[in-house]
Amino acid sequence: MYNGKVTVQYRNGILDPQAQAIHRAVKSLGYDSVQEVEQRKEFFLKLDCASKDQANKELDEICQKLLANPAIEDYEYTVEEE
Amino acid sequence: MYNGKVTVQYRNGILDPQAQAIHRAVKSLGYDSVQEVEQRKEFFLKLDCASKDQANKELDEICQKLLANPAIEDYEYTVEEE
Repeated sequence: MYNGKVTVQYRNGILDPQAQAIHRAVKSLGYDSVQEVEQRKEFFLKLDCASKDQANKELDEICQKLLANPAIEDYEYTVEEE
Repeated sequence: MYNGKVTVQYRNGILDPQAQAIHRAVKSLGYDSVQEVEQRKEFFLKLDCASKDQANKELDEICQKLLANPAIEDYEYTVEEE
């Protein structure tokens, strides 16, 4: 069994509308001290694969097909044996 | 200037519908090896506060009021001086 950890975030230079909305909301609550807001998603997957290579291969495919939008997001991942 | 990092995730025992939907989607793509999917959100805030205590206080309030849903989510945060 392998534990995959994936981090997905907006590519540098690409506007993150959700982070912008959070920043506006924070300001509207009166927290003018907040200068910047960024966000990212983390996913944790348990993979029952025959090898670590297989787990890496499948996780990369899952990132590209589902977890990240290749047009605007970057992803990183690690795979560790349980 | 202080850098705040916030992690928000569903409380243990509470069903995460989005993670469940991702798990179903992963299976429908043919990745039967995936046994479990969990997810969490991370936020990064730059706070221009007078002190670290002030930054901690404001970040905690922002978590409770905006970033986490106290009914179903837990949050953790750290504050570091830039």
